Amino acid sequence: MKLSDGVEQAIHCMLMLSGLQPDGAMPAAALAEYHGVSTSYLLKHLQALAGAGLLTSVPGPRGGYRLGRAAEKITLLDVVLALEGAGPAFRCSEIRQRGPDPLPQKFFAKPCGVSAAMLKAERAYRDELRKVTIAELAYNPDTELGNAIEGRSCAFRDRHERRRAAS
Amino acid sequence: MKLSDGVEQAIHCMLMLSGLQPDGAMPAAALAEYHGVSTSYLLKHLQALAGAGLLTSVPGPRGGYRLGRAAEKITLLDVVLALEGAGPAFRCSEIRQRGPDPLPQKFFAKPCGVSAAMLKAERAYRDELRKVTIAELAYNPDTELGNAIEGRSCAFRDRHERRRAAS
Ligand code: FES
Ligand code: FES
Repeated sequence: MKLSDGVEQAIHCMLMLSGLQPDGAMPAAALAEYHGVSTSYLLKHLQALAGAGLLTSVPGPRGGYRLGRAAEKITLLDVVLALEGAGPAFRCSEIRQRGPDPLPQKFFAKPCGVSAAMLKAERAYRDELRKVTIAELAYNPDTELGNAIEGRSCAFRDRHERRRAAS
Repeated sequence: MKLSDGVEQAIHCMLMLSGLQPDGAMPAAALAEYHGVSTSYLLKHLQALAGAGLLTSVPGPRGGYRLGRAAEKITLLDVVLALEGAGPAFRCSEIRQRGPDPLPQKFFAKPCGVSAAMLKAERAYRDELRKVTIAELAYNPDTELGNAIEGRSCAFRDRHERRRAAS
């Protein structure tokens, strides 16, 4: 079981975008530069996030991406499902119904105990990811590290944020 | 994020093997027949389970596979890690250190907050899988379904179990 590299990139992009002004946007090329990844690779992930409504794509010469809703309302689970798909990691193929001398159908109304246990564990995973928002990961003013990160990303936004009106 | 099909097959094989006598073994071909899958495909998973000590491979004409330890001591987590590898699903590539004007190294002693949150969720997942043993999934004598499954697998074991001494 492995999440795609895109998850780390996507979450860090969301963190950067959470610091934009409400009418701001940042081009994919700037997001790629800041994170040291290729624009074409990153675009695939940005489009998946936009498809899920987590980003808004702003067209035109002052365009780019901004968050699709408030950072307080975007969880890690939202980002993971947008990139990896909403389906469970474990998929029961009803192997219990294959092979010789199968049991009568009436026994298969309820899910297999194996599948139930696997999906319960996934619920615990998702519950944890649902608790963490982009807003709370974005900026921790209480630590030297939090302030250093904020300072660096702020300086980058100052150079690369695009606003509707010329600034 | 997707688990391989092998996880469902492996767990169901463990359930079947948990009903063998202590000196019993079942050939891969019988396990494959019971689960309606190809032997060559299943063998790959059985070998991974044996490599992790969850199965013992018994050589010779009366050979096959048996559990590597008591079913009470094999959890769903053991099986998943044996097949999927022990590494976490989320792997932090330290993307925070890439790009222009990186922060000084001293800021990276502690893991990134994103990585910490992702791994915390994986711990919750693993904790759930660790709670469930092969023994408790194998046989539920309290339900009609539990008894039907046991009856079917028992009949199959009667035909395909191999014992050290001729039976
Ligand atoms: S039949 Fe699918 S997990 Fe048991
Ligand atoms: S640097 Fe890897 S998750 Fe933040």
